[in-house]
Amino acid sequence: MPLTQEQLAEIDGLRESRSPTRRATVPAIEDLLYTPVPVLDHGFIRVIDYMGDDAAIVQAARVSYGRGTRRVQDDAGLINYLMRHGHTTPFEMCEIKYHIKLPIFVARQWIRHRTANVNEYSARYSVLDKEYYVPAPDQLASQSGSNRQGRGDALSGEEAAHVLAILKGDAERCYAHYEELLNEDEAGERRDPARAGLSRELARMNLTLSTYTQWYWKIDLHNLMHFLALRADGHAQYEIRVYAEAMLETLRRWVPLTAAAFTEYRLGGARLSATALAVVRRLLAGETLTAADSGLSAREWRELMTTLGRLP
Amino acid sequence: MPLTQEQLAEIDGLRESRSPTRRATVPAIEDLLYTPVPVLDHGFIRVIDYMGDDAAIVQAARVSYGRGTRRVQDDAGLINYLMRHGHTTPFEMCEIKYHIKLPIFVARQWIRHRTANVNEYSARYSVLDKEYYVPAPDQLASQSGSNRQGRGDALSGEEAAHVLAILKGDAERCYAHYEELLNEDEAGERRDPARAGLSRELARMNLTLSTYTQWYWKIDLHNLMHFLALRADGHAQYEIRVYAEAMLETLRRWVPLTAAAFTEYRLGGARLSATALAVVRRLLAGETLTAADSGLSAREWRELMTTLGRLP
Amino acid sequence: MPLTQEQLAEIDGLRESRSPTRRATVPAIEDLLYTPVPVLDHGFIRVIDYMGDDAAIVQAARVSYGRGTRRVQDDAGLINYLMRHGHTTPFEMCEIKYHIKLPIFVARQWIRHRTANVNEYSARYSVLDKEYYVPAPDQLASQSGSNRQGRGDALSGEEAAHVLAILKGDAERCYAHYEELLNEDEAGERRDPARAGLSRELARMNLTLSTYTQWYWKIDLHNLMHFLALRADGHAQYEIRVYAEAMLETLRRWVPLTAAAFTEYRLGGARLSATALAVVRRLLAGETLTAADSGLSAREWRELMTTLGRLP
Amino acid sequence: MPLTQEQLAEIDGLRESRSPTRRATVPAIEDLLYTPVPVLDHGFIRVIDYMGDDAAIVQAARVSYGRGTRRVQDDAGLINYLMRHGHTTPFEMCEIKYHIKLPIFVARQWIRHRTANVNEYSARYSVLDKEYYVPAPDQLASQSGSNRQGRGDALSGEEAAHVLAILKGDAERCYAHYEELLNEDEAGERRDPARAGLSRELARMNLTLSTYTQWYWKIDLHNLMHFLALRADGHAQYEIRVYAEAMLETLRRWVPLTAAAFTEYRLGGARLSATALAVVRRLLAGETLTAADSGLSAREWRELMTTLGRLP
Repeated sequence: MPLTQEQLAEIDGLRESRSPTRRATVPAIEDLLYTPVPVLDHGFIRVIDYMGDDAAIVQAARVSYGRGTRRVQDDAGLINYLMRHGHTTPFEMCEIKYHIKLPIFVARQWIRHRTANVNEYSARYSVLDKEYYVPAPDQLASQSGSNRQGRGDALSGEEAAHVLAILKGDAERCYAHYEELLNEDEAGERRDPARAGLSRELARMNLTLSTYTQWYWKIDLHNLMHFLALRADGHAQYEIRVYAEAMLETLRRWVPLTAAAFTEYRLGGARLSATALAVVRRLLAGETLTAADSGLSAREWRELMTTLGRLP
Repeated sequence: MPLTQEQLAEIDGLRESRSPTRRATVPAIEDLLYTPVPVLDHGFIRVIDYMGDDAAIVQAARVSYGRGTRRVQDDAGLINYLMRHGHTTPFEMCEIKYHIKLPIFVARQWIRHRTANVNEYSARYSVLDKEYYVPAPDQLASQSGSNRQGRGDALSGEEAAHVLAILKGDAERCYAHYEELLNEDEAGERRDPARAGLSRELARMNLTLSTYTQWYWKIDLHNLMHFLALRADGHAQYEIRVYAEAMLETLRRWVPLTAAAFTEYRLGGARLSATALAVVRRLLAGETLTAADSGLSAREWRELMTTLGRLP
Repeated sequence: MPLTQEQLAEIDGLRESRSPTRRATVPAIEDLLYTPVPVLDHGFIRVIDYMGDDAAIVQAARVSYGRGTRRVQDDAGLINYLMRHGHTTPFEMCEIKYHIKLPIFVARQWIRHRTANVNEYSARYSVLDKEYYVPAPDQLASQSGSNRQGRGDALSGEEAAHVLAILKGDAERCYAHYEELLNEDEAGERRDPARAGLSRELARMNLTLSTYTQWYWKIDLHNLMHFLALRADGHAQYEIRVYAEAMLETLRRWVPLTAAAFTEYRLGGARLSATALAVVRRLLAGETLTAADSGLSAREWRELMTTLGRLP
Repeated sequence: MPLTQEQLAEIDGLRESRSPTRRATVPAIEDLLYTPVPVLDHGFIRVIDYMGDDAAIVQAARVSYGRGTRRVQDDAGLINYLMRHGHTTPFEMCEIKYHIKLPIFVARQWIRHRTANVNEYSARYSVLDKEYYVPAPDQLASQSGSNRQGRGDALSGEEAAHVLAILKGDAERCYAHYEELLNEDEAGERRDPARAGLSRELARMNLTLSTYTQWYWKIDLHNLMHFLALRADGHAQYEIRVYAEAMLETLRRWVPLTAAAFTEYRLGGARLSATALAVVRRLLAGETLTAADSGLSAREWRELMTTLGRLP
């Protein structure tokens, strides 16, 4: 259970209260506001606040391009145009704030995206909860043979059970020792009065990287899409991809025209190199080409043939 | 008149429409939403949108510092604590969006602050309006003798009149020539069919730096306060300071606790160097000190004596 | 003449002096160091300093990917891999610093790229030189009919002459009035002792946007390539594109492997949308398609046919 | 031993090779280039590259302020002036690149500084070494009673021994299990052919936060000083402070004038709030004040009295 009864009551309170506002408001994302969307075994994302909508992007673009935008008929057309031509600043005019609970090893990947605002739970000031990630059995996979950073086949039942036993056992023991090192009770008093206890900023180092942390994370829409393009991608690690997919769903509710343009022009498209483009032109002209005379490396040829639907 | 009838009607429409929201809402800033606050002769600022309030800062801080914040009694105390100790990330959890009309030479100073999102009216795509800044006579000042970047005394009436005539005359003539170069009418058609007209991206170079431009400008509260600390300061040029002062007023409506802490700990305070601090200690110990035996330069001594109220 | 005799002598002095260093050093860019490369009529770029080389990128990548990079045979292969897969952080490990002289209207476009460090000549503190941009006659073009932001045909000789007369006349007159307003001689003393003179921070507003300014501009290699991808592009305004092209040439000298990969994977390639990709697949499968049954807008169809070499 | 024989040989090779350069060069930092400076039990910092020197800051400032800087006599005076008045952009013209080995829980604090370029060793691609931080006995301290984030007294010998046994035991066991999960030998082949082994991106989650990681970290001088002001401060956790102190030493070698100004105006100085400043003025005027009639909170009064040297 990722949230305490106290927190759930607070969420209910926030959801019940409504105020009138003159700001741009999106009912479909209001419906979701504050509600945790479960991710992994103990994690979640929650939309805490948002600023702007599809119309705010259009409005900012019309300020930028002035009379130049009059000819574009409708909002969807203008948003598609902006996305297609890389006019990114109007998308920066929208902002969203999430509350996210995630394992520390995922948080370490996530924080590499620097163009966001973050407030993370501090284990210098406070004690971390006993929550750690244990993969579902179907997610326990061996190292990929072909891809240096990926996963290969799922482990057999026996090996998987052994792996789970190790992951759980070490996380449990490390957390139990963390509590022993701290020597604090709920109220912050000593559990064993004979011992001083270790400071929090030191004791935390005994926890495993599977331990959950949480943060508030606020980002503009342009940078969010950049994050999602990288992290909702098939090459991203499963444990961060599921967060990206949950956030992509919030994008569709919040700014549906932008989400559609993002899918059409970024997620679903492809980038061709100069040589790959020349290959496509030659193929269209009816030439029969092989990897050897394409000018591409064997790997790039394979990737291109996959993109063109000629390889599975 | 900085806004057209069409724009004023649009503002009225936006102000009349209200939607229920579950988001943090601040009535005092809602009252001001969309309404232009005049600045200089043709400029304005308008708050277009905002995210968060004082409570959102407190909420983010409590996530960061967890149980560690329980002892702090109230929101004001916690916000003061964050401001005093330079814990800046909770303030980044709030965001505000302005629509601003300002002279180009002011925009060029302003844009040096890089941690904001900007959509500026594009003179490549569209035609700039005929609006240029002319200082009020009491703002026409000579170069400061003591300060390389500042203003000295106001000019005499006669010299001021001459200056104004030059500024107006050149701005008028340059704009008239801009229109002639463009050779466009309202609908973008040729005014003089015998001439092709110069492209907008080139014609704009004939305008003076006093010409007004406009942009949407979005920034988080922490970076806004950094901007205001520099630009609402007495050393800032008058023409940008008046914008900063108008924005400071919106800050007081939007996040009153934060605005009060900002005034107490940033705007109203002072930074002492190591040597200046040693001087204060010696003065408090009853020593009689002069600039010569203070270890400070003559200029730093004068600044310190002013800070300590011993010089006007 | 963009540089004074004094500055040229200083450049000669800097170029003559050499020190031994243990840092990564690139002879081909050392040859160019400090030397101004002329751009437009009075502008230039000069490389003032650089950090890192192609090998530094490889070194950073090998730290990141550790043993995972052993299989890649050589530096060129690894740099191509990084560029192709959007692994941008190793390119951030290189840095370059330019001194650039450019017209103010170009500087205003340029500064929209926020991920750089800038020190611009301050017209609050100092007096701007009498230098303004006047386009070469073949660059005087009318507004494009098809493209809201571009140029169309060159103006006829007679109209061009008229345009040049306006641009020069207004720049001259505005600068002469700027000097009159300042009322300063070389030494900063009053030219006309009967007048106080207007402060520099105010007088500058009388200058036209064609006036030259200058700055130091420092950026990492990843963000430089992003800048160049946008500004060396055919859609960029000619007056900024010529700067980007001069900088692209410095890139080729400084990091030749990276410059080649940049050309292959970014400048020379193309991005296809999801629908465009589907069209290519259908064309390759031998289908005969028209704009109408492609699922693309007329404009996107035209752009795709151009990319595929089927339209000029 | 934080570096392998292979790495030490590579460092020797780099240090022996020298090239002539026209760039700004600082012999005192050249002497240190590539050499690891030990920090904590297995960590280090190494300067890998640098750009600029004190003179480059002065040069950038003179471009910005032009003739306005002529009156300042010397480089030290100008650098002090820039530091005192918060003119930060000239300091951004210098850049430094470090290679740093540090425990993961320290890396997590460090990365909160977003204005730097980072390439971290990836445990998705590669296997982490068996190195974890164990505090020296005199650094094992209890939680501070007065300060929610700090340390109190050192633990007694017996309790310290117990703490060390836990920290070492858990790190050892978790690492041994990490190797067992991976089931890889040095060459990346299976150690136990009967098991597939767990992918690296998953196995890493079993490690403790005391495990060492490493990265290349590149930052401009202004942002480095901001980092050092926070992390070389007495309130920073000991384990990050020792890194900051080692870097402060490299600053003194690299840019001695800037380092001196930084110590005088940032590290050694103090910031007074508006109310604290009023208290100082009243004390200087001879008033006898107590906490109660100062207008300050009890805590702020205590902090001010300490700053003024009236409390230890």
